[in-house]
Amino acid sequence: MEILVTIQEMREWVAAKKAQRKKIGFVPTMGFLHKGHLELIKRARAGCGAVVVSIFVNPMQFGRNEDFSAYPKDLERDQQLAEWAGADVIFLPEAEEIYPPDFLSFVEVPKLSEVLCGAERPGHFRGVCTVIAKFLNLIQPDELFLGEKDAQQLLILETMIRDLNFPVAVVSVPTVREADGLALSSRNSYLNAKERQAASFIYKALAHARDLIRRGEFSAPVIISEIKRIMSSHPQVAWEYVEVVDAKTLEEVIELKGDVMIAVAAHVGKARLIDNLRLRVG
Amino acid sequence: MEILVTIQEMREWVAAKKAQRKKIGFVPTMGFLHKGHLELIKRARAGCGAVVVSIFVNPMQFGRNEDFSAYPKDLERDQQLAEWAGADVIFLPEAEEIYPPDFLSFVEVPKLSEVLCGAERPGHFRGVCTVIAKFLNLIQPDELFLGEKDAQQLLILETMIRDLNFPVAVVSVPTVREADGLALSSRNSYLNAKERQAASFIYKALAHARDLIRRGEFSAPVIISEIKRIMSSHPQVAWEYVEVVDAKTLEEVIELKGDVMIAVAAHVGKARLIDNLRLRVG
Repeated sequence: MEILVTIQEMREWVAAKKAQRKKIGFVPTMGFLHKGHLELIKRARAGCGAVVVSIFVNPMQFGRNEDFSAYPKDLERDQQLAEWAGADVIFLPEAEEIYPPDFLSFVEVPKLSEVLCGAERPGHFRGVCTVIAKFLNLIQPDELFLGEKDAQQLLILETMIRDLNFPVAVVSVPTVREADGLALSSRNSYLNAKERQAASFIYKALAHARDLIRRGEFSAPVIISEIKRIMSSHPQVAWEYVEVVDAKTLEEVIELKGDVMIAVAAHVGKARLIDNLRLRVG
Repeated sequence: MEILVTIQEMREWVAAKKAQRKKIGFVPTMGFLHKGHLELIKRARAGCGAVVVSIFVNPMQFGRNEDFSAYPKDLERDQQLAEWAGADVIFLPEAEEIYPPDFLSFVEVPKLSEVLCGAERPGHFRGVCTVIAKFLNLIQPDELFLGEKDAQQLLILETMIRDLNFPVAVVSVPTVREADGLALSSRNSYLNAKERQAASFIYKALAHARDLIRRGEFSAPVIISEIKRIMSSHPQVAWEYVEVVDAKTLEEVIELKGDVMIAVAAHVGKARLIDNLRLRVG
């Protein structure tokens, strides 16, 4: 497995693979890989002749008071795991390589970026879209692998790719969970033992909501208050938002119908965690 | 010469040319072609194995009170001229093909888009960037041919392409002028005989400014007021802006030094015309 740090090296690698007519699969990450990332890499390996994993903690998608500098890192472990899962190359650029001092351009999907996580993290999805647009132009993948845990990010990137005609197919991969249901996230490493236990109640609340819906409860306000009640039963869990939205438009839903998403963000200790459930109702 | 109207047709044509390893040259236009466009097409023909000319009056780059519906059209003549100049294919999509009802994504270079033409045309350059980003992803050209008459557009697109790592080289082509100096523009067709004569004073004012600079006048305020004086001597010419800016940052310059641009926009009859002069001083 190769590690490439400059845009020039990455372009040359891509040109060589294109000349060999290899199908390129791309898995963007911020490193500190967990089983969710490895699932993405394995899927890319299974479907593509060449697999690129980027490790880049993108400063543009972090707000001033967020955990950019504290974001967990373990590059040696990441390399071993990525190679084990099937990566051919890690793209590991410095921030200055991606954003030189005269950088001025942005890509965004404003309507889908102002709700849910975007409401608390202004500029976050603009940062995500801009860096992924850059990586798509650099790596020119045939397939882009994204996790369903970051559901809003997935929808925004699918929209950007469709609207701007990027020649790439998006492959979305289901959330990988711990035994007690907690969605895997690099930020779970911020949790101490007590917080880790409490964090499982994010998923437990979502699972409870799914049970309610299966038993015929279609009122979003009722479902939302049930989720909040269960999360609040653990003093370590402070929910930021709990919403039921249309899965395509992210608009609030009052009565569950069609393709809906229940989306949750909560602070547990120093970690801001998100999770979601997608359901087809009726 | 082929005419393609759907994204699907365009993608297939591009795939075929890529399979033949042809170098693709791309000339984006809004149609009603003039010698300036033909120069771009000829340059593309000379350097590339496959030449795409798009004709698309991009609604996203027009403001509410601008000339979108009135923009001149003559498709039959455009076809003949484009073919004569060396185009292999015209991409002629409908607005709905480019912007379906659920379109939500944008590309922009805010800092360079708020001055000069952008000050009077909010959203204009966002529309330009977004449509060109789409066309670059669709057509995947090796070279993009742009005219220097639209100097701010050229700088913004060069910046977008550099920042977002689009794998394309920009070839800029000098402004083509009438015998009396008027820069060619599809909008010149709006002018009656008297207005046409008056419009030549836009360039005459710029040429006078160049003479002043050659004779050692480096004060931007002096140069600007001289340009305004000459344009105002014709009652049909109403200047919108006259500015001296740094050619790379578009920031205002007080004392001419280095790579500068004198940029002008003026209304003559129903036409809004722009022109510019780039100079290296000192």
